[in-house]
Amino acid sequence: MGMLAEILSIGDELLIGQVINSNAAYIAGKLNSVGVFADTMTTVGDSEPAILDSFERALTTHEVVTVTGGLGPTHDDITRAAVCKFFKTDLVVNQEALDNIKQRFALRNIALIKRNEEQALVPRNCTVIQNHHGTAPGYLFERSGKYMIVMPGVPGEMKGMMDEFVVPYFAKKGTGTSIVHRTLKTTGIAESLLAEQIGDVSTLFDQDTGVTLAYLPSATGVRLRITVRASSRNDAELQAHKVELKIRSKAERYIYGTDDEELEHIVGKILTDRKLTISIAESCTGGLIADRLTNVPGSSNYFERGIVTYSNESKIAELGVPRSHIELHGAVSREVAEAMASGIRSKSNTDIGLSTTGIAGPAGGTAEKPVGLVWIGFSNRQQTIALRLNLPSDRRTFKERASQAALDLVRRKLLKIES
Amino acid sequence: MGMLAEILSIGDELLIGQVINSNAAYIAGKLNSVGVFADTMTTVGDSEPAILDSFERALTTHEVVTVTGGLGPTHDDITRAAVCKFFKTDLVVNQEALDNIKQRFALRNIALIKRNEEQALVPRNCTVIQNHHGTAPGYLFERSGKYMIVMPGVPGEMKGMMDEFVVPYFAKKGTGTSIVHRTLKTTGIAESLLAEQIGDVSTLFDQDTGVTLAYLPSATGVRLRITVRASSRNDAELQAHKVELKIRSKAERYIYGTDDEELEHIVGKILTDRKLTISIAESCTGGLIADRLTNVPGSSNYFERGIVTYSNESKIAELGVPRSHIELHGAVSREVAEAMASGIRSKSNTDIGLSTTGIAGPAGGTAEKPVGLVWIGFSNRQQTIALRLNLPSDRRTFKERASQAALDLVRRKLLKIES
Repeated sequence: MGMLAEILSIGDELLIGQVINSNAAYIAGKLNSVGVFADTMTTVGDSEPAILDSFERALTTHEVVTVTGGLGPTHDDITRAAVCKFFKTDLVVNQEALDNIKQRFALRNIALIKRNEEQALVPRNCTVIQNHHGTAPGYLFERSGKYMIVMPGVPGEMKGMMDEFVVPYFAKKGTGTSIVHRTLKTTGIAESLLAEQIGDVSTLFDQDTGVTLAYLPSATGVRLRITVRASSRNDAELQAHKVELKIRSKAERYIYGTDDEELEHIVGKILTDRKLTISIAESCTGGLIADRLTNVPGSSNYFERGIVTYSNESKIAELGVPRSHIELHGAVSREVAEAMASGIRSKSNTDIGLSTTGIAGPAGGTAEKPVGLVWIGFSNRQQTIALRLNLPSDRRTFKERASQAALDLVRRKLLKIES
Repeated sequence: MGMLAEILSIGDELLIGQVINSNAAYIAGKLNSVGVFADTMTTVGDSEPAILDSFERALTTHEVVTVTGGLGPTHDDITRAAVCKFFKTDLVVNQEALDNIKQRFALRNIALIKRNEEQALVPRNCTVIQNHHGTAPGYLFERSGKYMIVMPGVPGEMKGMMDEFVVPYFAKKGTGTSIVHRTLKTTGIAESLLAEQIGDVSTLFDQDTGVTLAYLPSATGVRLRITVRASSRNDAELQAHKVELKIRSKAERYIYGTDDEELEHIVGKILTDRKLTISIAESCTGGLIADRLTNVPGSSNYFERGIVTYSNESKIAELGVPRSHIELHGAVSREVAEAMASGIRSKSNTDIGLSTTGIAGPAGGTAEKPVGLVWIGFSNRQQTIALRLNLPSDRRTFKERASQAALDLVRRKLLKIES
């Protein structure tokens, strides 16, 4: 039933609590997907005896050991030396890694110094894992049927190596077990109400079939995670699909996407499919909606422009919001949200205009208009409407929740899902 | 020199990568502040043998062991039973915990069931840590000069117990050691070059004085962490201050802030101090600069408006960029960046105009203008200039790096730091 793994993280910054260890969770999830299961995660500091001890202990009790951290170019990066000592080997230049380092520095127009070149030195007798997102290569050691994988601690570099090398490596090898996770992402409904909608899990699957369902709440929505463990990938996927259909039949309207899809990807897809364009007028979300939309490659095809009108003057000058609306109803009002949405739409000549105006806090709230209040405006050729929500939270979380609600309003309007 | 700790986390959700372990970092930081130092963090699953093994090993080699997770009311919460087995004790009702549980359910108008009442059962012969943020109490065991602290895994409940019980407990006991961390945040310089600038750490402090320096790279800059361990807090702070001054004398221009300060806070402070206003015209950063600036409470005092001009038409219409500039030099050019910066400044009537135009990728790059190329424009009453950078990375990281470079350009210009 799969291979057993330990996930080792190295770094004083983790032990003093300066950095939250997100690498271990990423590695665990990716290993799971190819039938490698972590039963232990360990963090030790930048200390050679501690690192050597952890290698020894982990490899004695596990078939797979991953190691991250301590491969950088400075004095406190001691993992490479510890690895050489542990495997009783020395360093050799890896030409591909050296070429990669030179190319990266050339691209950035920075002179290469010896300290950088030395990153191309790798332990003799290992498989080198090239780094496509940075300069420090990783290593795979295979010794008497056990595997040690050493990667940099920089998340983007580690993720690249996991996705491009480690996952395909174990997928090809085959571990006798497949696990499939399927996440359905919802927004606009509280966890408890969603649980009511979906009902008892026993109506979704039998308890003894290797299927589990988890509710994962966050500020911007609840994720539903279906996990299936089976002897073949096909079996696991078939079962996961069955459960997904049952959940969808009960809560479809709240599900905007699956797995790694963000709401901005979904909205982008719908706009692309229908050849529609959008423009955004933001006040309280401060550019976050535009930022999210433009995280999607190709968004320039449907996102025409966005305006962050933080001052009243800019709302009037940029969007044609009547000064009287602001004076009579205040900047945070249905009237202003609607005028902003239709104003940005007609100015940009797009199919859709979207707007937000609200009170992000921590100051600026009143009894009548408390921190967390937001009006979201939507305008297309048929109608201009505004939606009022109360999302009391800290400033950043408020911005995230308001941007999520605004993008979801676009999704529901385009898919004609009634509110 | 302080007490040595291991931080144990229990839970299958951590081992499959479903939840990132943020508890361990919080506990480590809080323990540090009272002279208790973690040299190991370990995560194991909801398995009694694994839990008992980890207890045994951790207490053999450490004076303090913290445990989180597995104290909830459901079938997979087995920590309490494991604790009783380990300390060879049984359960007794804790009246204060029971009153707390009853009160919480009454407040929420929910009927109490037996499963909830049983949470008031605690191991005999321990100090009970009351839970002011939930229902499951925690435990402190003191055995032959060693301490084991067991807390729930729900972050808010664990944090309450750390702040209200554990930190005061060790502060009162006194551990003979204080630790001070000071982080200097840099941007605009590669880790290796920064290390060259700063030179050998032996010129900063003696190796045997309890001072360490760590380089922590990220996509948007390198953080330098000074750690000092001393017998008193005053001593530690004095030493950290001395090292900080030495580093500043060598790399001041790259240091934008300290500890938790983000660049947008620093830029906001400078603008506030000088009573200056800013407006932003973004293309490739897609609203991220405006989003970051508006994350700062009070930013409405200096941030007037931002425009995300993704299309060429919007650059012309919104910012007055001459069409001929775009035709002759392309949208990603010095000329367009400068016209965007001065255009947004004069339109918004602000002191400063800031702009970005670049190629975020993954598509759209050419040999002459590759993915990662960005022009950053800056305009004030004295001058309008543009800066060319190459920041090849994935789309999101590119946006983060470009926004960081743009905000840092504002910082340097206002502080008159030469590029």
